[in-house]
Amino acid sequence: MSHTVEILSVGTELLLGNIVNSDAQALSRELSGLGLNVLYHSVVGDNPKRLKAAVELAKSRADVLITTGGLGPTCDDLTKQTLAEAFGKKMVFHPECAEGIRRFFAQSGREMTENNLQQAYLPEGCEVLDNAWGTAPGCAFEADGTYVIMLPGPPSECLPMFRARAVPYLSRLSEGVIRSRTLRVFGLGESAVEALLRDRMNALANPTLAPYAKEGEVELRITAKADTAQAADALIVPVEAEVRGVLGDLIYGADVSGLEQVVLDAARGRGLSLGTAESCTGGLIAKRVTDVPGSASVFKGGVVSYHCEVKAGVLGVSQALLDEKGAVCAEVAEQMALGAQKVLGCDLAVSVTGVAGPDPDERGNPVGLVFTALAAPGGVWVKRLNLTGPRARRDRIRNLAANHALDMARRWLAGLDPTANSWPMDG
Amino acid sequence: MSHTVEILSVGTELLLGNIVNSDAQALSRELSGLGLNVLYHSVVGDNPKRLKAAVELAKSRADVLITTGGLGPTCDDLTKQTLAEAFGKKMVFHPECAEGIRRFFAQSGREMTENNLQQAYLPEGCEVLDNAWGTAPGCAFEADGTYVIMLPGPPSECLPMFRARAVPYLSRLSEGVIRSRTLRVFGLGESAVEALLRDRMNALANPTLAPYAKEGEVELRITAKADTAQAADALIVPVEAEVRGVLGDLIYGADVSGLEQVVLDAARGRGLSLGTAESCTGGLIAKRVTDVPGSASVFKGGVVSYHCEVKAGVLGVSQALLDEKGAVCAEVAEQMALGAQKVLGCDLAVSVTGVAGPDPDERGNPVGLVFTALAAPGGVWVKRLNLTGPRARRDRIRNLAANHALDMARRWLAGLDPTANSWPMDG
Repeated sequence: MSHTVEILSVGTELLLGNIVNSDAQALSRELSGLGLNVLYHSVVGDNPKRLKAAVELAKSRADVLITTGGLGPTCDDLTKQTLAEAFGKKMVFHPECAEGIRRFFAQSGREMTENNLQQAYLPEGCEVLDNAWGTAPGCAFEADGTYVIMLPGPPSECLPMFRARAVPYLSRLSEGVIRSRTLRVFGLGESAVEALLRDRMNALANPTLAPYAKEGEVELRITAKADTAQAADALIVPVEAEVRGVLGDLIYGADVSGLEQVVLDAARGRGLSLGTAESCTGGLIAKRVTDVPGSASVFKGGVVSYHCEVKAGVLGVSQALLDEKGAVCAEVAEQMALGAQKVLGCDLAVSVTGVAGPDPDERGNPVGLVFTALAAPGGVWVKRLNLTGPRARRDRIRNLAANHALDMARRWLAGLDPTANSWPMDG
Repeated sequence: MSHTVEILSVGTELLLGNIVNSDAQALSRELSGLGLNVLYHSVVGDNPKRLKAAVELAKSRADVLITTGGLGPTCDDLTKQTLAEAFGKKMVFHPECAEGIRRFFAQSGREMTENNLQQAYLPEGCEVLDNAWGTAPGCAFEADGTYVIMLPGPPSECLPMFRARAVPYLSRLSEGVIRSRTLRVFGLGESAVEALLRDRMNALANPTLAPYAKEGEVELRITAKADTAQAADALIVPVEAEVRGVLGDLIYGADVSGLEQVVLDAARGRGLSLGTAESCTGGLIAKRVTDVPGSASVFKGGVVSYHCEVKAGVLGVSQALLDEKGAVCAEVAEQMALGAQKVLGCDLAVSVTGVAGPDPDERGNPVGLVFTALAAPGGVWVKRLNLTGPRARRDRIRNLAANHALDMARRWLAGLDPTANSWPMDG
């Protein structure tokens, strides 16, 4: 039998939109990996009546209930007590938990207020899930055919507690393993990807194949279930091969964080360095590249030449050219990339110049007209993009322009034509 | 009567932990600001049976149901159909929606696959919520005493659709007018702000005063309800004055998009130009500044001097200094700012150099040690920051360092000491 899971998060701060429910995401990802089907997320505030009703509902529709939050020392932390009631259990003082809480405060050099000892009351007969990352212990028990696991809310405690304490408890329940692999696609919208793969997606049951639209690209996730990780991975292989047969080099990576990571890894593998010259993207490409830890081994730096005097003065773009054609043209993109390569002393340089909006530029170039260029050993390439249409807002144009510039470097590093992809706008 | 809201998000990718439910957070924040009580979040997958049961449940416990996701063109997008069924409504083809979808594709220069027209089927008698940010229209209707609003899932569509389309619909349900004003605070953590204002927050009923922790700063939202906008605004004035009396110049703006906007506006007002020199922030400041439409009238450009040779070669930082002290020191920050001012030809330049992690630098400088500098007419100022602690991760350090650099410019432009604020880490 396959277990079904509900994650019930408790906290008014979630309903106020003060924080995002990252616990539900983190646990869902882990649970899927364990072969457990998460069927519901729910959130209620710090209200015993609504919490109790939510627990009754969860009992009726899932056989594993995982709660997050409401285990702390303050008076609105009422998860343990409410769940004990819902399952007809008494709350019992656990002296060893009290000891652990005292020890935690002593080790952090902080004074302990008495209300912290409330956290040592737990439902009778439960398994205590010791919290090495904070003060509130979690707990687990089985009652009325439901497996209950309570975890603390702070993400820095919830996920470590899950991995170290809940997984050993859950592994006694689970049959099989779920594995997934995510292919990243740049150059087609979600509906076009789906149209190409719909028949296969409908025919597949294990593994499943599903597209997800992301900002400026599409993810395709293949998910397989089997007795072992090895067997699940083996189910994924032929489906991945088939998808690659359809989408070819539009797939830029598998299980990667983004185009910037693929470019960094490929450049690092070939011992090449990278730089940027940005006008309308205004530092976005450099920012995305340096989001990646370890980028310093490849990325030398960048120039944000927002004004023409910086294009001319720092990057050496011809002033006569700027005077004649303005900043938004193929030649300026080319000279920006070549200038960055020289000034920054890097092997590969990508550049972007264009009109991100909201208004056309002073020469009347329309919003969404963008040129990207790549200077690399052996040549320089330019692409003209029309990132127009109703969704062509400033942030999307900038993000898509950055993707196109990075995709040029990605293609060159993979031995492909850097200019092959001229997909207009994400859908 | 006060309305109660449930947000029901539809999408297997949420249950797999592929994405975090940021829509629920964004909408909750907006709804709270409108004086609507969000009592439940729930998430179900792309499964009509479970979705229908979730809708029935929502009908029984909330009077406003807002769904996110499942409006797209693919076969697992089944929200509209399932909700129509749950409320006994037929699905009807809306030719004007089909026209809008065709136009969207035509304007983007992309071919439209036929499945996109599925998005033009909507429940009979609904109010169409036109989607200017994507292809899938939303809709709203009232049935069985429940107000239903369906919004698309992608966050870049969901929040703009809510603000532009759902709020006017919702405002008809609410009596009176709700107005809010958001004060932005940089330099104190949420718990410290709360401790300073707790007594007032508890004493206030209309307006209410509530703090929200944001990445690297705090928002204080004052929300008033009255018969007219004017009357609501008049209620806000004395509370704002009181809060300003407590927090002083830690409040950097009201109803602004961020520090970058305040800096741009103040510089523009004084006819001064801006530039950046970034090492560990890697273009983040330039990116944030150029996120703001119209930034080109102030921002000349930036240099991302990730490697020392770019610091020396482009910004003119002394090679002897770099050899002796390394890149992470006050003198380098100072020379970077002065170099940017000169090379970019700008009046104000901010700079950042530091260790964003995950590892200490090659000289053993710890993760979180950051120097920010400001060069301005009349002087140059440097701040040393220790952005350490258990929450000091790469992205937080970079973002907070960018805030500190921008805050130096903000303070100088306001006639304050640029180095006054040395708040260590957001709490």
